[in-house]
Amino acid sequence: MSEIFDIKNFRSAEHEINPLILSRWSSRAFDGRALTMEDLSSVLEAAKWAPSSANQQPWLFIYAFRDTSSWIKLFTLLNVGNQEWVDRAGVLVVLISKQVSDRGSLNETASFDAGAAWENLALEATSRGLVAHAMAGFDYEKAREDLKIPDDYKVEAMIALGYTGDKKNLSEKNQVRDVPSQRKALDEIISEGEFKF
Amino acid sequence: MSEIFDIKNFRSAEHEINPLILSRWSSRAFDGRALTMEDLSSVLEAAKWAPSSANQQPWLFIYAFRDTSSWIKLFTLLNVGNQEWVDRAGVLVVLISKQVSDRGSLNETASFDAGAAWENLALEATSRGLVAHAMAGFDYEKAREDLKIPDDYKVEAMIALGYTGDKKNLSEKNQVRDVPSQRKALDEIISEGEFKF
Repeated sequence: MSEIFDIKNFRSAEHEINPLILSRWSSRAFDGRALTMEDLSSVLEAAKWAPSSANQQPWLFIYAFRDTSSWIKLFTLLNVGNQEWVDRAGVLVVLISKQVSDRGSLNETASFDAGAAWENLALEATSRGLVAHAMAGFDYEKAREDLKIPDDYKVEAMIALGYTGDKKNLSEKNQVRDVPSQRKALDEIISEGEFKF
Repeated sequence: MSEIFDIKNFRSAEHEINPLILSRWSSRAFDGRALTMEDLSSVLEAAKWAPSSANQQPWLFIYAFRDTSSWIKLFTLLNVGNQEWVDRAGVLVVLISKQVSDRGSLNETASFDAGAAWENLALEATSRGLVAHAMAGFDYEKAREDLKIPDDYKVEAMIALGYTGDKKNLSEKNQVRDVPSQRKALDEIISEGEFKF
């Protein structure tokens, strides 16, 4: 949980916010420790309490623990650049969302709602001294095929979950990259009354 | 902040999670108090620290305080059913996301990322004794037109933000509806290794 206390060396918020939110960041440095089903269940439990349009909860989570045949199946979907550091994560998750609403029409907010669930997952991981890192760098079509995902679901993201580790285990390139990212100024993303950007 | 302490009368988590996440819920009961720019800035500050693919931060927020001409413009977009209770909120926000990536291609994760920002906003509101309630019940096309939103942005949601109020101010129908919603069992939304739902 050391990130909770030293994040301010890396990030400066313009307005004071809950420290958990500022402390969440997508490190690549995992320590290789195995995760338990309880670890995984807790972060997915947090995900499921996200809000969604008409409480439809369009999210589903396909997971694999390291050192299982399912892990190999999920790990193989990743780009080589991600495989390099994900091999010390404990669990891989593929987050998908049902794009058809309970009434049979297109659920326009399914991806947006799945993103809310993902953020809960990431924050719960941070609460527990875990790191959750979402990735778009994987083969989406192969994921659909290999994991037997039906057409009415969208593949949203893959997530690596694990205990925080020493950056020294990363490649030199990733050691340089592996710092909490910055953000635009608030003024650049807010506008009164209409679109004025 | 009373919800922090009595949420367990309404919701039972299968696995213990950060109480902030379980306590966040989308009440319709606002008390009509005005919000300050500092209130609004704090919840949007939290939103901006969400993760996004390649840290592109595709989210933008168009806002209006109650009792302004902009408020009327945004309020008019809402369905009548939402107008009924939103009139005691302090701020309305329209959350939009840029669907084109920094490299000019389609940003496939923009809506997902915007959902993560929305959840941070909602959690920060909960932290502060505010309520944030996202809505899909509004005229998306009129929003695009009236707020001059360009075609390469998607209108994701409208959000009512305000201080928690007494349920007695709601219509009878909404008094009945205005309780923290439940969720599916974890077993219904997780699957090992492949899609087995």
